[in-house]
Amino acid sequence: MSLISFPSKLLENAVTEFSQLPGIGQKTALRMVLYLLRQDKETVNSFGNSIIQLKKDIKYCKECFNLSDTEVCSICSASNRDHGLVCVVENIRDVMSIEATGQYFGVYHVLGGIISPMDGIGPSNLAIKELEERVSTGNIAEVILALSTTMEGDTTNFYIFRKLKPYPVKVSTLARGVAVGDELEYADQVTLGRSIVNRTLFEGTIS
Amino acid sequence: MSLISFPSKLLENAVTEFSQLPGIGQKTALRMVLYLLRQDKETVNSFGNSIIQLKKDIKYCKECFNLSDTEVCSICSASNRDHGLVCVVENIRDVMSIEATGQYFGVYHVLGGIISPMDGIGPSNLAIKELEERVSTGNIAEVILALSTTMEGDTTNFYIFRKLKPYPVKVSTLARGVAVGDELEYADQVTLGRSIVNRTLFEGTIS
Repeated sequence: MSLISFPSKLLENAVTEFSQLPGIGQKTALRMVLYLLRQDKETVNSFGNSIIQLKKDIKYCKECFNLSDTEVCSICSASNRDHGLVCVVENIRDVMSIEATGQYFGVYHVLGGIISPMDGIGPSNLAIKELEERVSTGNIAEVILALSTTMEGDTTNFYIFRKLKPYPVKVSTLARGVAVGDELEYADQVTLGRSIVNRTLFEGTIS
Repeated sequence: MSLISFPSKLLENAVTEFSQLPGIGQKTALRMVLYLLRQDKETVNSFGNSIIQLKKDIKYCKECFNLSDTEVCSICSASNRDHGLVCVVENIRDVMSIEATGQYFGVYHVLGGIISPMDGIGPSNLAIKELEERVSTGNIAEVILALSTTMEGDTTNFYIFRKLKPYPVKVSTLARGVAVGDELEYADQVTLGRSIVNRTLFEGTIS
């Protein structure tokens, strides 16, 4: 069901491969392929091989399940990180988002998804047992649950909270509230409500 | 100057390669790479190899310079095409656009660009000499210039027109006018002006 008539089967193949990418239609895929075709052979080879090599050689850190080039990722093997503080996230992108803030100095635990019965994802599909094992060593002082504020995120939070209850570990979640720079009138009611209930002390002035 | 801190060098390489694509920033590139990483090894290999193989094996038709899997492209080797009618286009994408209309049954000549002194593209960088050679055989009855209506397109049209003047060949250009489905008030003045000057006879009713 091609919208475009291709002069070449090879071109059509490449365009079909590119149009499977998220958010990429056939026309954009064609633009990308023709762009690459204008580059020299080395550039195209290095493009193609970068993704093949990534798939072949990438590892998942055996501590936190983050993507890594080595058995244990650079965060888990860093000596200047607080290894007693574990931030639980849904996926690798969340690790990168939190790292980009430059505000977090603990380690991570990547679940690989969240509990979502609709998509057939249960607790056993996620790295929750492994989190429990990490906590059971007694070396972890606090677990921060940094999952989405959706029904699935809340379910997963609650499930993990119950699993970790027997252990002497503090469990916290991200603060929810009005985003920095947002105007109050545009904040949704639930968020605004939570931000009033969980208000923080104004340093110094309010006692 | 990475906006994202990558947990893996391999991942960073792949994202850097993808973000060189036109219209793709680092975040979109990351989304694409993580999407591919979730696919199985065969899918990723076939993705990577499709572009490497395209670059390695693609040919340019020796008649019209269209992309082709063979020495002579499927259009130039088709017996049901009018080989005396040549449509001159800037690039391969234009061939595909015209083919998609299903209204053209001649052959093509792909220039590989248009004359653009600003970008350092002169007549010698384009397949204009080859067009002249095709016309000089005397087998071509009409050349349709289907280039963009820009300054560069007009310059190229004029250059080709002058080059082909010595030969007994008809030279035409695409009709310019108000697009089908467009409202008059939104058409620009130049287009509307041209469409009045070059008005076509209303079949049957106006004589």
